[in-house]
Amino acid sequence: MDITTLDMTIPRILHAYRDKSLSPESLIDQLLLRSKNYDDHNIWITQLSKQQIQPYLDRLEKFTPDELPLYGIPFAIKDNIDLANIPTTAACADLAYTPNKHAHVVECLIKAGAIPIGKTNLDQFATGLVGVRSPESWGACKNSIDPDYISGGSSAGSAVAVALGLVSFSLGTDTAGSGRVPAAFNNIVGLKPSKGLLSTQGVVPACRSIDCVSIFSLTTDDTNHVFEIAADFDSTDAYARPNIDTNRKNYGILPQQSFRFATPKEEQLKFFGNAEIETGFKQTIQQLEQLGGQHETIDFSPFLSAARLLYEGPWVAERRIATKGVDPTAMLPVIADILSTQKTASADDLFKAQYALQACYQQVQPILVEYDFILTPTTGTIYTIEQVQHDPIKLNSNLGYYTNFMNLLDCSAVATPAGFMDNNLPYGVTLFSRAFSDTRLLSFANLLQQKLNLTLGASTHTLPASIAKDAGVMDSVEIVVCGAHLEGLPLNWQLTERGGKLVKKTQSSANYRLYALAGGPPFRPGMVRDEDNGTPIEVEVWSLPTKQFGSFVAGIPAPLGIGKVELKDNRWYTGFICEPYVLNTAIDITHLRGWRNHKI
Amino acid sequence: MDITTLDMTIPRILHAYRDKSLSPESLIDQLLLRSKNYDDHNIWITQLSKQQIQPYLDRLEKFTPDELPLYGIPFAIKDNIDLANIPTTAACADLAYTPNKHAHVVECLIKAGAIPIGKTNLDQFATGLVGVRSPESWGACKNSIDPDYISGGSSAGSAVAVALGLVSFSLGTDTAGSGRVPAAFNNIVGLKPSKGLLSTQGVVPACRSIDCVSIFSLTTDDTNHVFEIAADFDSTDAYARPNIDTNRKNYGILPQQSFRFATPKEEQLKFFGNAEIETGFKQTIQQLEQLGGQHETIDFSPFLSAARLLYEGPWVAERRIATKGVDPTAMLPVIADILSTQKTASADDLFKAQYALQACYQQVQPILVEYDFILTPTTGTIYTIEQVQHDPIKLNSNLGYYTNFMNLLDCSAVATPAGFMDNNLPYGVTLFSRAFSDTRLLSFANLLQQKLNLTLGASTHTLPASIAKDAGVMDSVEIVVCGAHLEGLPLNWQLTERGGKLVKKTQSSANYRLYALAGGPPFRPGMVRDEDNGTPIEVEVWSLPTKQFGSFVAGIPAPLGIGKVELKDNRWYTGFICEPYVLNTAIDITHLRGWRNHKI
Repeated sequence: MDITTLDMTIPRILHAYRDKSLSPESLIDQLLLRSKNYDDHNIWITQLSKQQIQPYLDRLEKFTPDELPLYGIPFAIKDNIDLANIPTTAACADLAYTPNKHAHVVECLIKAGAIPIGKTNLDQFATGLVGVRSPESWGACKNSIDPDYISGGSSAGSAVAVALGLVSFSLGTDTAGSGRVPAAFNNIVGLKPSKGLLSTQGVVPACRSIDCVSIFSLTTDDTNHVFEIAADFDSTDAYARPNIDTNRKNYGILPQQSFRFATPKEEQLKFFGNAEIETGFKQTIQQLEQLGGQHETIDFSPFLSAARLLYEGPWVAERRIATKGVDPTAMLPVIADILSTQKTASADDLFKAQYALQACYQQVQPILVEYDFILTPTTGTIYTIEQVQHDPIKLNSNLGYYTNFMNLLDCSAVATPAGFMDNNLPYGVTLFSRAFSDTRLLSFANLLQQKLNLTLGASTHTLPASIAKDAGVMDSVEIVVCGAHLEGLPLNWQLTERGGKLVKKTQSSANYRLYALAGGPPFRPGMVRDEDNGTPIEVEVWSLPTKQFGSFVAGIPAPLGIGKVELKDNRWYTGFICEPYVLNTAIDITHLRGWRNHKI
Repeated sequence: MDITTLDMTIPRILHAYRDKSLSPESLIDQLLLRSKNYDDHNIWITQLSKQQIQPYLDRLEKFTPDELPLYGIPFAIKDNIDLANIPTTAACADLAYTPNKHAHVVECLIKAGAIPIGKTNLDQFATGLVGVRSPESWGACKNSIDPDYISGGSSAGSAVAVALGLVSFSLGTDTAGSGRVPAAFNNIVGLKPSKGLLSTQGVVPACRSIDCVSIFSLTTDDTNHVFEIAADFDSTDAYARPNIDTNRKNYGILPQQSFRFATPKEEQLKFFGNAEIETGFKQTIQQLEQLGGQHETIDFSPFLSAARLLYEGPWVAERRIATKGVDPTAMLPVIADILSTQKTASADDLFKAQYALQACYQQVQPILVEYDFILTPTTGTIYTIEQVQHDPIKLNSNLGYYTNFMNLLDCSAVATPAGFMDNNLPYGVTLFSRAFSDTRLLSFANLLQQKLNLTLGASTHTLPASIAKDAGVMDSVEIVVCGAHLEGLPLNWQLTERGGKLVKKTQSSANYRLYALAGGPPFRPGMVRDEDNGTPIEVEVWSLPTKQFGSFVAGIPAPLGIGKVELKDNRWYTGFICEPYVLNTAIDITHLRGWRNHKI
């Protein structure tokens, strides 16, 4: 198979492996060739040779594509994350070392069958949002769609590799936006998971207390698939947290037909003169409204206050600790400058800054709880490489306006494509919420991705249909009711107060008789199976949350009960049945063909 | 009523109010008199006059004892917590100010009807575990049982006031043990709640990032009662957290008949030469074993490492921030000395210490998850006031051996009385676990308190019976089974895999017939009500967790169902019923009086 027709999404590749139209080895060979076309983009710090990749391919021989969830899926690794026996540089030759084992998160992916094909370029020490802060030996990483433009950073090469179809997904890191800004600039999805879900063991720290490993891929489906594998609790990472999200297995399942989202109020939105992204962002709001979203605006100031703390406060001490031992003259001057700020900050200063941050955290909680997600542009604009080289600090800072606060405020965030400008460059939006809402955010991002139906990355491939269910499927039980529980009748509240919903009005199979039982109120019918002499009876199917079913059933008095009832489609449903011992005192009302027709 | 016979527990006082044998005003009058007997103990920094208390008493006139959960219950407030219009000193005249509103937690208690009667003595700035670090004007707070001994601190007066029956409960604060050590030394219960549950708004900070307001009372019942009222989420406290404990309404309900607890291994237990407390601690372990506890030992080193960070690391910066503006010469020399340490710590140092702490936190999680609670002595020994005056730093430090790490590692803890030494002084134990386990810890502490049945505080009053249920009541449904679900039969697993438990083997009322239905395997009977011609049938009652009931019922095939079955006690139970339409193909086995007797 010639991979020019392959969109590089994970399900498509696995499909091609299963039907044997493609082998992992053939895919890797073709990707290594494809990669050569993009040498100018400065994507890689170390690209693996075929020989270096071979052991990973060989390992697959023991498995089939059905046995490993990432069987033969090529991926790239930001060069501040360890791949065994390959140097880790963090884009600084002086820091370089060669680890003898994989970072925990890399290990998880490789165990699942993924094939590493290289270590990617980044802003030195992951300090930057531009992608041009790499020493000359590796060069500025170029945008996948227009090489005059910045790729975004710091996870520059990882994003560009995905956008250009050199890999299916990649790992970045994201302390202040490094996993989201490059996603926006290259028309791909970037997940900044909740802190502590992806192990940072084997990752060069930036700000250790808030560092995250991030995931880039073409679709939210792929992101979620990789996230589920990569988010493996690692107790050797001091900052690791178990995933307490009870929804984490429910990707694609949105619990309601409508949802609520908020954006910063008008005057707090900044586009730095980019009218196209401004217009585009308003369109995205409308598109979400069309999907059932209720839109409100919020005061964004506590988020912005937190962001200011990160770059104007003592957190730079963490970057200094992380680069201790590296001679400042061996760093890019712009990085050395940043690291030298706040050198005199005391423990007292840091505690005060942490108090201020905690106040911001407390302020934003009611906002985050109120909405399904907050929506912002991922960045307000994009710059050319030349522009950034002329004004490296301020333009970099502009790109972090919507991203810097995220980890400090313990949020999770998904950056997802939102459209293209006239110059063909993409722009993106970010959905964020509290920690552990990753899966839910991906589900909403998927809803938007399916609606927008944009081409993938820098390619002309179209978006594949999502594997996610997009309806609000809850864990529920269906029950057939035929009497006082029918809609509008006296006991219907027993269903509705438990969150019951009417599924359909229908009829039983022609094998039932209906009796008005003695006693009451409430007056009740009994539906009794009679295969020889029955008739169809008017019934309703209601769905009830499974957890509510127990108390509902426990409240049903004799002679009624819950058993199986055959409907006119000749399928059996859980529903009301009746014991026969009372029929001698009951009135046969079968001829009425339904309880509603019985006048009490 | 003369209150000498009153044990000062909350239910007893409310009872006396309800039967009008006592009025709040009479109680307060008698307590103010009683308090005079203990002037030498240096309990108060400001005791309220009758006139100052009067408005709180007047407010009760609008209510009955049934309308306010703390109606007329007297309480004391550590003098680093604001009571409106009364000076707050933190035991330092230079820091003193007069707040114009109550601290949030005080406001909650007063709204619930509690009557403040004074502000209590403490180790200056809540820095100390001894209770003697108060300026001469207020003096060293003396032990309630033997005034030659220290009261414990820093919440010294609050504990002594409860132990001497001057109030029913009191508020302390607990950063490193201040709410537990004085509980141990005065034979009362001290709860150090999970961080963020009791608002610290209106509290003079010690180490602001880890400060807690704590509760002293005579019984765990009272502690839990006050805790439920005091733990009111306050978004104006930056460190406030909502209580995510799903068990928080289940005080007294222990989920299993047996439980697991651990103690530090032998060589990590320190008693500082106090053989009596050492023996006593071993007895407590045995007593817990007699209550169904399975005892193991753990490596205590990560807890101890965290503790060392608190006093040897840069956290003292927080105490410095909190006392900024107070002239060091206006402080007790021992406090000024402590605050002057680590003055040169940098932000880098603090981040490194926080990394080290995070590593300890991660290390202890598997231990905390493994056990229902960890048990330690609250302190290894007790000292006389004279001993502490001769060696103020080291002896203070000894007292924190089992307490210092608690807030740094985000644990909740209950200090509870464990016995008396020959010199009549008490010793205590602490049960601790992860944050948000407060209610569960109180339930286990109650179990121990009921078993030990010690006198209360410094009095000879005996322990009242607990209002808590001590059995393992779970939310479950009972189901009558009569066929393949009977114990040992082919479908019994459908009950056991859902956590089902056999309640009893019994019989139905004499109104049933039993049929062997056609079809199978599994072979199934149908139990059919027949009031004219029935017989008792052998059945079993099984209990099933309610949340599992829905899936169990949904899996039952026609013609069976779940309805109501009458048992031989003539009560109706939820259980298996059968529709009659299949009886023409079934075999009547009523004469066998049970499915077990039917040979398939």
